Amino acid sequence: MDGEDQRWMRRALEEARRGVGRTSPNPAVGAVIVKNGTELGAGWHRGAGLPHAEREAMAAVRERHGAEALRGADVYVSLEPCSTHGRTPPCTMGLIEAGVARVIYAAEDPNPSHAGRADRLLEEAGIQVVRNVLAEEARRLIRPFAKVQSSGLPWVILKTAMSLDGRITRPPGEGMWLSGPESRAEVQRIRAEVDAVMTSGETVRRDLPRLDLRDPELAVGRQQPWRVVLTRNPDLLPADAPLFTDTHRARTLVETRDHPEEVLRSLVKERGVSAVLVECGGKLAAVLLEAGLVDEWVGFLAPLLGGGPVPALAGSGLPEGLRLKDPLFQRFGQDIMLRAEIERAE
Amino acid sequence: MDGEDQRWMRRALEEARRGVGRTSPNPAVGAVIVKNGTELGAGWHRGAGLPHAEREAMAAVRERHGAEALRGADVYVSLEPCSTHGRTPPCTMGLIEAGVARVIYAAEDPNPSHAGRADRLLEEAGIQVVRNVLAEEARRLIRPFAKVQSSGLPWVILKTAMSLDGRITRPPGEGMWLSGPESRAEVQRIRAEVDAVMTSGETVRRDLPRLDLRDPELAVGRQQPWRVVLTRNPDLLPADAPLFTDTHRARTLVETRDHPEEVLRSLVKERGVSAVLVECGGKLAAVLLEAGLVDEWVGFLAPLLGGGPVPALAGSGLPEGLRLKDPLFQRFGQDIMLRAEIERAE
Repeated sequence: MDGEDQRWMRRALEEARRGVGRTSPNPAVGAVIVKNGTELGAGWHRGAGLPHAEREAMAAVRERHGAEALRGADVYVSLEPCSTHGRTPPCTMGLIEAGVARVIYAAEDPNPSHAGRADRLLEEAGIQVVRNVLAEEARRLIRPFAKVQSSGLPWVILKTAMSLDGRITRPPGEGMWLSGPESRAEVQRIRAEVDAVMTSGETVRRDLPRLDLRDPELAVGRQQPWRVVLTRNPDLLPADAPLFTDTHRARTLVETRDHPEEVLRSLVKERGVSAVLVECGGKLAAVLLEAGLVDEWVGFLAPLLGGGPVPALAGSGLPEGLRLKDPLFQRFGQDIMLRAEIERAE
Repeated sequence: MDGEDQRWMRRALEEARRGVGRTSPNPAVGAVIVKNGTELGAGWHRGAGLPHAEREAMAAVRERHGAEALRGADVYVSLEPCSTHGRTPPCTMGLIEAGVARVIYAAEDPNPSHAGRADRLLEEAGIQVVRNVLAEEARRLIRPFAKVQSSGLPWVILKTAMSLDGRITRPPGEGMWLSGPESRAEVQRIRAEVDAVMTSGETVRRDLPRLDLRDPELAVGRQQPWRVVLTRNPDLLPADAPLFTDTHRARTLVETRDHPEEVLRSLVKERGVSAVLVECGGKLAAVLLEAGLVDEWVGFLAPLLGGGPVPALAGSGLPEGLRLKDPLFQRFGQDIMLRAEIERAE
């Protein structure tokens, strides 16, 4: 029945994905409830303070098929059900009360003191537990949550658009865009995954970026990301830049560049941020990489040799090369996107 | 019958490919002879002074099926048959004498004063001619020949192995190789496509490269490529570098860096070179690109952020960005190879 479990877990992950970028500080989780090979209902966690995915799925089943339908059902959930009282009663209790037969989950609770606790509670109640089904895929979805849990820091994605020789500007007089419209649409989708977009004062001055969600399909049901400007000198920021004048200017924060780690930490604590996208020039990029603050890199390589004078990472290279784990390559128009986690020295 | 023609032309291109890197100053050409839907024989041009592909294919048919078998046959050839007396009598004559029914070819003769001439000669003899079948693919195979014909310059491929931020060295103490063994094996295959490998004195001093064909499968039946060192000061080259001491040291040339175009021109004239692979550092790469001497770029991108201080193209970027045409992306181990023609302003 392994194939069957994976098939339904894929459905649960599909549900979970709907929540990515909406649930911070909570993780994106999805659940599907199945009986006799039929999906009775599904649900996903829609945001902090709202019901967990298992609760959403159970409610959907009750509404459609009545409460009795849950008895003896299989519950697929992308993350280990919670076992502690948070803002909502623990889902393990709900599952036990509903009388389900099996709980199949993908990723363990990333909090080591909670991990595996659901198993014991559920098994004591006579519910069969299967774990680690498509765990790797599920863990990818909750990386921001897990990072915050383990370090108090957000998951940081560094985006770089560049020519093939590693330049992030074009030669003078050739226009501003290196990457094509298909790549820029993908950047919009990545912005929708995060809670904050970070940039440098230099980039604000040079490019006057908006750093917001403009695609209405992405913006619906999502807050605009925080826009965080790291700068040494706030007085030098142009007051008429879109970040300070557009309709969501209240979501713009100006912070000092001197202690980026502290800024990231306070975004977690004070704004509930779990994931940050950095869109900046080569100087801040090099600073964040060297400080070990970047978790993932997304590069858009334009089919162009010979950009302008600005290198993707400023200075004379990093003191240590950072390896990328199993890079994903994908074509966007004429550009290629490379996306990968940065390998951490263990 | 279009599908059928393309199918057999694909076979002819397959034959042509066997000659790539072996035929300079001639182009790589392949031919297949077909009757009643059956391949009677095939052939490819094996090198200057040896029979052309059509002659090879006709000889194969005669040997296997007798001379009469050619009568009424279809001849697929990747390049327009020659119509002038060169080192061998023109193939159009041979085809007419053999009494074939149809000649189907892919690319026109790149010499504008010859192009289409075979059509007239063959049609006057009552032979049906079909042209431009898979012409684009065939033209790719004869790009070096066509470049020499049109300009007196060889087809120049610039190879760059680099980190994702466009650095061609690794940070101090991290070893010499940026790209992995799979990429380096592909570089061997590219060396087998060309007649000469060009590098800079700086690269010779720093890396002591061999720039030869080491894979026995590739080296068999091929001459080692010329190795051309461009340098301002020949006296600074290490006399004990492999290029000057190995078994094919007679294939090493040292030339001045001041006039790279003249060096390329004389490689064509004096050594019969049609294709050159450049493997060098960022300075010479930028010089050749700026001078408009590079036709194709092959980049091996290693999954590494933060290389050493040396950028892929030295200085502060090119004065003009060069667009790449329809880049081909291919994975080699953990690296990605990007290969593309450089777009010329028309």
